[in-house]
Amino acid sequence: MYIQHNWNFRSLVCGVNTKIPINSGEYVTAINFDNAATTPPFNYVLQEIVRFAPWYSSIHRGTGYKSQLSSSIYEASRKVVANFVNANLSSSTVIYVKNTTEAINKVARHLAGSPDDVIISSSMEHHSNDLPYRSKFKVEYISLDNKGRLDIKDLSNRLSKHKGRVKLVAITGASNVTGLINPVNSIAALCHKHNSKILVDGAQLIPHHPFDMSPKDPIEHIDFLVFSSHKMYAPFGIGVLVAPKEVFTNPSDQVGGGTVDLVTHDYVKWAELPNREEAGTPNLIGVVALTSAINMLSYVGLSKISAHELSLCEYAFNELNRIDGISLYGDTDIVDRVAIIPFNIDGIPHDITAKILSYEGGIAVRNGCFCAQPYIQKLLKISERDIEDRIKNPALPHPGVVRLSFGLYNTHNEVAYLIKLLKKIIKNKNYYYRLYKD
Amino acid sequence: MYIQHNWNFRSLVCGVNTKIPINSGEYVTAINFDNAATTPPFNYVLQEIVRFAPWYSSIHRGTGYKSQLSSSIYEASRKVVANFVNANLSSSTVIYVKNTTEAINKVARHLAGSPDDVIISSSMEHHSNDLPYRSKFKVEYISLDNKGRLDIKDLSNRLSKHKGRVKLVAITGASNVTGLINPVNSIAALCHKHNSKILVDGAQLIPHHPFDMSPKDPIEHIDFLVFSSHKMYAPFGIGVLVAPKEVFTNPSDQVGGGTVDLVTHDYVKWAELPNREEAGTPNLIGVVALTSAINMLSYVGLSKISAHELSLCEYAFNELNRIDGISLYGDTDIVDRVAIIPFNIDGIPHDITAKILSYEGGIAVRNGCFCAQPYIQKLLKISERDIEDRIKNPALPHPGVVRLSFGLYNTHNEVAYLIKLLKKIIKNKNYYYRLYKD
Repeated sequence: MYIQHNWNFRSLVCGVNTKIPINSGEYVTAINFDNAATTPPFNYVLQEIVRFAPWYSSIHRGTGYKSQLSSSIYEASRKVVANFVNANLSSSTVIYVKNTTEAINKVARHLAGSPDDVIISSSMEHHSNDLPYRSKFKVEYISLDNKGRLDIKDLSNRLSKHKGRVKLVAITGASNVTGLINPVNSIAALCHKHNSKILVDGAQLIPHHPFDMSPKDPIEHIDFLVFSSHKMYAPFGIGVLVAPKEVFTNPSDQVGGGTVDLVTHDYVKWAELPNREEAGTPNLIGVVALTSAINMLSYVGLSKISAHELSLCEYAFNELNRIDGISLYGDTDIVDRVAIIPFNIDGIPHDITAKILSYEGGIAVRNGCFCAQPYIQKLLKISERDIEDRIKNPALPHPGVVRLSFGLYNTHNEVAYLIKLLKKIIKNKNYYYRLYKD
Repeated sequence: MYIQHNWNFRSLVCGVNTKIPINSGEYVTAINFDNAATTPPFNYVLQEIVRFAPWYSSIHRGTGYKSQLSSSIYEASRKVVANFVNANLSSSTVIYVKNTTEAINKVARHLAGSPDDVIISSSMEHHSNDLPYRSKFKVEYISLDNKGRLDIKDLSNRLSKHKGRVKLVAITGASNVTGLINPVNSIAALCHKHNSKILVDGAQLIPHHPFDMSPKDPIEHIDFLVFSSHKMYAPFGIGVLVAPKEVFTNPSDQVGGGTVDLVTHDYVKWAELPNREEAGTPNLIGVVALTSAINMLSYVGLSKISAHELSLCEYAFNELNRIDGISLYGDTDIVDRVAIIPFNIDGIPHDITAKILSYEGGIAVRNGCFCAQPYIQKLLKISERDIEDRIKNPALPHPGVVRLSFGLYNTHNEVAYLIKLLKKIIKNKNYYYRLYKD
């Protein structure tokens, strides 16, 4: 049982007291339970950007004072990132991209060789940790148990079957649909025993839970880690790829300014890592935002953040479980998870429920499939037949669920307010359904 | 002759009054003549970001009030961009990327078919408008006249030679080395007569000169336009690609979240444009920065901006021409150009000159080849032999020039201060060279 502390994380985040209009004509304080999609900025991140702005200048090759300052901030930031996730900068490199999706596309391109090469992904992945591999590899999917967790035995079987020839096992650190955390370090050990590498999609994990790429036993090290600043209170267009240097033997998937050392019309000498992989002018202010967010998350402490968010999660699960007419999906245990809850009100489509919560209560949630359709298809036990029908007839309603995802600034009072509204909706189901169905 | 107006653009830009230390121990107001690399933010851009921050939320599929607001701002921004460059949104689409380089890599991937396909670039291009084509096409380069301008007759010959089979002519709107503007609308007409399309790299042109993708005569329309917000006073990680919708027949070069409509383990239905081409969570705050900058540039007026910057350029050229021991490169006429000046002090390597200007005067310039090495090789008349020597021996000094590039906030006084310092350096050449050579 998690304890409700008196921690005040609320003042850290921008926009938590914004008043928004609801259907009644009243203005209410906006509640945001959609932190898995993106997070509002830390006030500190905004302050640091404004403080840095007068010094912003061109990086890498400028000789001006501001350029030198900007360049040193940019290069030093890689160490801040590496420290945060305990990456080893002698064997790995920190590359900045625009978001997690770009990072994974980059990895897929660099690993691509023969189309017969195998990558093992899982049935609980975000599309971004699945689609980039499909055109370049044979992709297999680790199956799930009936609680929506990875079936590690199935992974083990697949690795054995391919006899050391799986190029990569690509799994999420925490699901963006159910919040379930995968035991990535023990999976890493399994992969390495089978001569494979592991990529962890850290988008949902890194901002909410302590993480260590390089634990004591080297067999448990994570090879590739990807995550995005916009999910960690720094929504300024930066994603991170931490990857083994040895992977980058070919020219980058994106080439141009900054990636080269010497060029004629028929000769190119490529630059060193990581510059070679960062074509075009880097987003320095985005990097300042990212490192400011990392500093704030570290200052607060990921253990504390996790404890607070999971206390909200436990409270919400307890309350939701007591309401008749709510369906929950996946494992509801408060272990090995981040604070994400997928649910539905029986008899009300997910999109209508999301609309009611927004227009009646000023509560922002997300609904649908969260870019993880195969996982939703499994959690909702959607038949092959139903999927085929939807392929043939795109006008059919999209299946899906409603998702709550908590951030460090959410409160027990906000959850209580949600629960109260859900009870009211269920009590007056027909009224609300009719009001919002169009 | 350009007139010195009393326009005060200085207060628009962040950091113009920053004091920085120089070698003497004094603090002086920083002077930035490196606007072709990147520009400081408009104060208005910062204000708009801070004003928007409390409303920042997930876009596309969120039902919360802030999500709906964020989504509508994001989608409406495409019209702001289209209006700014007069793009036709019925036949073209506005796609957000992270910078100009990513935009061109995307175009190259979408146009790629047979490796025998031809793209014509030019000898004055930034590497970003050259390297992305090399692995996928036969690339030819339009030659230059002795003033560093495009030889249009050479382009015409090449188009004739290939008999309507050139896939794309990719040229810069204005050179990042010499500032020379290409007559892109008449080149477009030439391309279209030969069944080719035209891509204009607008990175250096769009923030400094009026531009129209769709002038009266359709044969002069620009097919592809690319540019970056970080060169237009909004350095927040956004680049723009305007392109014909018909080009995007294949899956995107980056796939994942947001690019799909329906997904199973063995089926994908891709989403519509432009979302299909914007994989992962878009950089909404970057887009707010871009549209704010566009609004400010439009409010001030590009004609006024161009007149002011060219008046600085003319003044600088006049003064530089009067100094013995300064070499200028390329056409120095104040017609068909933006305010960029490449030069060298005879007898002082470009990197030392840049260092002296920075440490003695607090003046930031750029030096080197500016990611346009083939152009520099031509302007500096570097022999094949010299280039081969450098390929064999990377320790040899890099050839290059010093570049001044003006922004709307630069002043005649700043140029006068530079000229005074240059005269002092030339007068005491040995002293300064010895002081800064290491």
